[in-house]
Amino acid sequence: MGLGVGLIGSGYMGKCHAMAWTSVATVFPDVERPRLVALADATDELAARYSKSFGFSRGTGDWRELIADPAIDVISVAAPNQFHADMAIAALEAGKHVWCEKPMATSLADATRMQEAAKRSGRIAILGYNYIQNPMIRLARSVIDEGRIGTVNHIRLEMDEDFMADAAAPFYWKSDKASGYGALDDFAVHPLSLLSVLHGRITSVVADMAKPYAARPLRDGGQREVENHDIAQALFRTEGGASGVLMVNRSAWGRKGRIALQIFGSKGSILFDQERMNELQIYSADDREGLQGYRTILASPAHPPYRQFVPAPGHGLGFNELKVIECHELLGRIAGRGDAHVIDFSAGLEIERVVHAMARSAEKRGWVDV
Amino acid sequence: MGLGVGLIGSGYMGKCHAMAWTSVATVFPDVERPRLVALADATDELAARYSKSFGFSRGTGDWRELIADPAIDVISVAAPNQFHADMAIAALEAGKHVWCEKPMATSLADATRMQEAAKRSGRIAILGYNYIQNPMIRLARSVIDEGRIGTVNHIRLEMDEDFMADAAAPFYWKSDKASGYGALDDFAVHPLSLLSVLHGRITSVVADMAKPYAARPLRDGGQREVENHDIAQALFRTEGGASGVLMVNRSAWGRKGRIALQIFGSKGSILFDQERMNELQIYSADDREGLQGYRTILASPAHPPYRQFVPAPGHGLGFNELKVIECHELLGRIAGRGDAHVIDFSAGLEIERVVHAMARSAEKRGWVDV
Amino acid sequence: MGLGVGLIGSGYMGKCHAMAWTSVATVFPDVERPRLVALADATDELAARYSKSFGFSRGTGDWRELIADPAIDVISVAAPNQFHADMAIAALEAGKHVWCEKPMATSLADATRMQEAAKRSGRIAILGYNYIQNPMIRLARSVIDEGRIGTVNHIRLEMDEDFMADAAAPFYWKSDKASGYGALDDFAVHPLSLLSVLHGRITSVVADMAKPYAARPLRDGGQREVENHDIAQALFRTEGGASGVLMVNRSAWGRKGRIALQIFGSKGSILFDQERMNELQIYSADDREGLQGYRTILASPAHPPYRQFVPAPGHGLGFNELKVIECHELLGRIAGRGDAHVIDFSAGLEIERVVHAMARSAEKRGWVDV
Amino acid sequence: MGLGVGLIGSGYMGKCHAMAWTSVATVFPDVERPRLVALADATDELAARYSKSFGFSRGTGDWRELIADPAIDVISVAAPNQFHADMAIAALEAGKHVWCEKPMATSLADATRMQEAAKRSGRIAILGYNYIQNPMIRLARSVIDEGRIGTVNHIRLEMDEDFMADAAAPFYWKSDKASGYGALDDFAVHPLSLLSVLHGRITSVVADMAKPYAARPLRDGGQREVENHDIAQALFRTEGGASGVLMVNRSAWGRKGRIALQIFGSKGSILFDQERMNELQIYSADDREGLQGYRTILASPAHPPYRQFVPAPGHGLGFNELKVIECHELLGRIAGRGDAHVIDFSAGLEIERVVHAMARSAEKRGWVDV
Repeated sequence: MGLGVGLIGSGYMGKCHAMAWTSVATVFPDVERPRLVALADATDELAARYSKSFGFSRGTGDWRELIADPAIDVISVAAPNQFHADMAIAALEAGKHVWCEKPMATSLADATRMQEAAKRSGRIAILGYNYIQNPMIRLARSVIDEGRIGTVNHIRLEMDEDFMADAAAPFYWKSDKASGYGALDDFAVHPLSLLSVLHGRITSVVADMAKPYAARPLRDGGQREVENHDIAQALFRTEGGASGVLMVNRSAWGRKGRIALQIFGSKGSILFDQERMNELQIYSADDREGLQGYRTILASPAHPPYRQFVPAPGHGLGFNELKVIECHELLGRIAGRGDAHVIDFSAGLEIERVVHAMARSAEKRGWVDV
Repeated sequence: MGLGVGLIGSGYMGKCHAMAWTSVATVFPDVERPRLVALADATDELAARYSKSFGFSRGTGDWRELIADPAIDVISVAAPNQFHADMAIAALEAGKHVWCEKPMATSLADATRMQEAAKRSGRIAILGYNYIQNPMIRLARSVIDEGRIGTVNHIRLEMDEDFMADAAAPFYWKSDKASGYGALDDFAVHPLSLLSVLHGRITSVVADMAKPYAARPLRDGGQREVENHDIAQALFRTEGGASGVLMVNRSAWGRKGRIALQIFGSKGSILFDQERMNELQIYSADDREGLQGYRTILASPAHPPYRQFVPAPGHGLGFNELKVIECHELLGRIAGRGDAHVIDFSAGLEIERVVHAMARSAEKRGWVDV
Repeated sequence: MGLGVGLIGSGYMGKCHAMAWTSVATVFPDVERPRLVALADATDELAARYSKSFGFSRGTGDWRELIADPAIDVISVAAPNQFHADMAIAALEAGKHVWCEKPMATSLADATRMQEAAKRSGRIAILGYNYIQNPMIRLARSVIDEGRIGTVNHIRLEMDEDFMADAAAPFYWKSDKASGYGALDDFAVHPLSLLSVLHGRITSVVADMAKPYAARPLRDGGQREVENHDIAQALFRTEGGASGVLMVNRSAWGRKGRIALQIFGSKGSILFDQERMNELQIYSADDREGLQGYRTILASPAHPPYRQFVPAPGHGLGFNELKVIECHELLGRIAGRGDAHVIDFSAGLEIERVVHAMARSAEKRGWVDV
Repeated sequence: MGLGVGLIGSGYMGKCHAMAWTSVATVFPDVERPRLVALADATDELAARYSKSFGFSRGTGDWRELIADPAIDVISVAAPNQFHADMAIAALEAGKHVWCEKPMATSLADATRMQEAAKRSGRIAILGYNYIQNPMIRLARSVIDEGRIGTVNHIRLEMDEDFMADAAAPFYWKSDKASGYGALDDFAVHPLSLLSVLHGRITSVVADMAKPYAARPLRDGGQREVENHDIAQALFRTEGGASGVLMVNRSAWGRKGRIALQIFGSKGSILFDQERMNELQIYSADDREGLQGYRTILASPAHPPYRQFVPAPGHGLGFNELKVIECHELLGRIAGRGDAHVIDFSAGLEIERVVHAMARSAEKRGWVDV
């Protein structure tokens, strides 16, 4: 019998977790089908509705019931960011494994507490950085590890969407200072998670943050000042000796789910864009002269674990399936599989440290060590 | 309580059906969670293994047990092609709805029998033409229906993969005449399913079929003649007055899952390629001079039912998720929803007729009316 | 002192020839600067204006003056198609070399006369098929010749523009039967010139031709029937054993200068599109598993004669520069350089034969041997 | 009779100027054919050879002969960078117009002297920033000027090539400190020229520079330290209120002639990449919901002065043709045409100031005002 699962939250990411828990055993034959024990939401009513919809045995308006339930082995935390710390720590202290959505927490202090709780508990605690699970990102990693592009010396990272690009859209909570720095929290963590997997640690940064719109309209007339920054960019240096640039923009008209990587090395380079997530481009200086060029590789059974989803190449995985892979890796980590590939709370804390260093740099207008 | 489901087959498409049945209620809140009653496979042992893996309550080596089981309301037929007719007809005669993988059958006679059985039964019987379920194809249809590209006058359809491109790969059953015409059965049905949805009926064809390799090696040495055609192409005319070309090739090195459409009209055109299944390109002659160009539209919540999977644009659906949509449409059809969008056995028979007309044309070296 | 040049015509292609004659010695250091002796146009006045603009020493309203001028060694024929035969034959009979724009002539009989005149004269007589001069097409040829994609077994050729796509545009001479078959004359010759260089002869065809608009408006009101076909497509077989498809459409909204090639072989494939004329895509089955993909090669000094134009890669040649290369090849052929790469009147006649065979096939609705 | 031209230099850019001077009157009917009076090169011998090849009346090993020649009205300076200042100033003081290749000079002091000499002379003095002449860049400018993407708020500029990417290639002069900062001089000026045309002035910067290789091999064995930086990046703010990032890398394996722009505004965005120089991508938030996407616009007669080169759309201009346009703009400026579009020495000096500010910023590790 598989592990017992409790899910907190039924929004965008809650549903995504539910799909992952539902599909993981169908996709991966090495996994026992998890038991979907309970779903917690803001009210009993919501919880009842979504537990039925998502296939959980019961629902509750009190997430602490899940913590207390001995039938539950692992807790998915997909509630609003400000609750991550309390929920994750409570779950870990109750001896449960934790799968927490990113960003880890709304303050570095909370993130640190979470990491400490995880360490104390001896349980598995990971963050939902699902982009690293893309078979194309795994391919990029193996290409780098095998030395195919030589020593990495320069990196460019971009993440852009346009959900806040409309100046006429009403002010909403994401422009409130309480929600964080803006694009740095919302977006920067994603390309940084990819960087941590593909290259390594950032050691110093100089950052700038900008507001495309100083104020936004209120629904009932009038305007309210925008309190954080939809745009951020930083220059950085890495432990591995590379220079790089990070650029994030959540008001970038035309960009929908762009996470673009450019990684240059002494023997080649790699390009990736999440908007075409089933493709990786590789340039090798070892190719014959006159025949050198970026090779567009389509996701295929040669790129684990693609084959578990489709046995034919070029058929395309979707965003949600990255979450299924993440779920499988979490189960692997819980089962003690050595090569399970996740961002745990310690690695997640590193990412948070970079984000906060960037924010400090933007404020003091100068370079900051991470 | 949702419908009772029986699944025959646990291979590529069997697993794909299982994923769809598992996910459909999680994704679509208007659907009751189906009951996964039983899975049938070639042996009891296989059936036991996969029923567990896929979450079915029990397994059996005898598919007729599923037909006989009153707890089962709908049967997924994902067994080898030569069994489709018997299984689908038996299921329909037992009063069950049928979701049958394509190609419909290995002969026109069988396909006709299936269509007749469906008609007699009064049950819902559909074919697994999941490419039509892509939100981008639905967008293409609405763009055409709204007249945005004017009257369609020319169409080009391509489907290419390279799984049979390796001349050194051993002879296998797909090169045996018993498996059918070759690329025509394997591939042509897919772009034809898209054509049937986007434009309408083909009235006449002239076709050619070709073998890239006359013989293929046997595993134990020696060679065996290839008995059907990996490549086929046809010119056609449609009821709607358009001319067109269909091209299919399963030995096309470099192509992995290409299904490319070019649809030209009197006011614009549409391009699509399944290898980039989350994109649709539209050209409108109504755009301002000097600013005309193909617009690359990324799948987004504006394109139903994308929003059910992800509420943010540009995040990308995968091939398997088309099957989830198909499953939802099947359930909608069963529930009597008028706009449920499927290829039923009657529409499927039309597609088969075109394929067989092309084969006749290639043999007699001339134009053939469908 | 370089060769003496006479140019007949100052329209689109006349200007293009003038640019080529002006630039060829600047670009290619092995060439003596040609003397621009005289330009002929419809009237003395036009000829005077354009001879000054294009840098020719004098102009004349009578093209036969150029034929009679002993200072002229080579004649560029860029006059309307119906005059090609008379002009080229007169020039050849006067002992001049000829560089004639395509299509060769408006009838197969004329084209044959031209080819015979060339043979008799012992002079160099070539056609303006400049697309074959693209360094990327030369690269494609060398890739095929070196066996990198193995034995070619399938070919798709497309040429599409939209200059006749507007149904509301007034009837003009290109829709008149006197101007020829339509897209077959206008377009098909171009991809066929590429095919002749990259693969070889077509042996049989079955073709279809279509009219997107049955009639077009007259400027003074009313409508006039369209007498030829803006759309044509054909299936074909080649001497080399390949099957293929040719598609041309001059009413294809969105396409501007598309000439797309797909060439599939037993070990790889090649893609090209003239709209991105500085790129060639190559797929090799010899690449390592998991790293296979189309490689996009940018034009560079490794691809002769690109280096003569720009010593840095990726800077891009333009359409007009293909004509400069063609001019250089013509001069090489005149100078007896063995590897000069042109479509002479004999090769051009072969292309005409294919076009006329396609037209016959469309009329008789069946396969035709070339 | 047209202006008299003197050209100094016969290398890469010298040849490019020669092609422009040769073609400009053929392409542009409003221009009188320039007289190619004399070419100067390092020696009489080289000058003799290239003057013949490029069509100049005579050659000389002494560039000052050109300055002294009253038959010469305009001097093209395409000699090595360290000579630009002396040559340009001498020419201006002799009353000649100057067309000088970039970078303007090797020091800010020299650049300033040049700008002052130009001002004093009353002659036209421009720099060879030909990328701004691309019809697609002009289109971008008009799109911005017409407000189609609203207020520009964020800009990303990249320029990358790989001609110095090979770590095994021998040390050559470009890695010598005497040649300048490295990628900043070589590359940054180009995207900055585009920025100056499309948006406006940069007011502050923070930059970083990096060496992918600390040393490079000497031809005779041993290694020599690399003294400048192949990689540079900077954050910046503009007078127009936008934030931005500039990235340049001349050791970027895979990049050949990339100059990529991303310009985001309050109503849309624009993308451009010089490697596909005949395309511009525009996204407009005014497009209908569900039909929004980047539109790929191909260069066409609707985009001046494309039509002068080819009357048909999508046929593609080349890099060299940008120089022909630049030459035409120079002649227009000389003739007093008000809208002639060039980077004169004053605008060029602004660009130099930004580059030097970036270098200072990289040294002092902090923000610098321009």
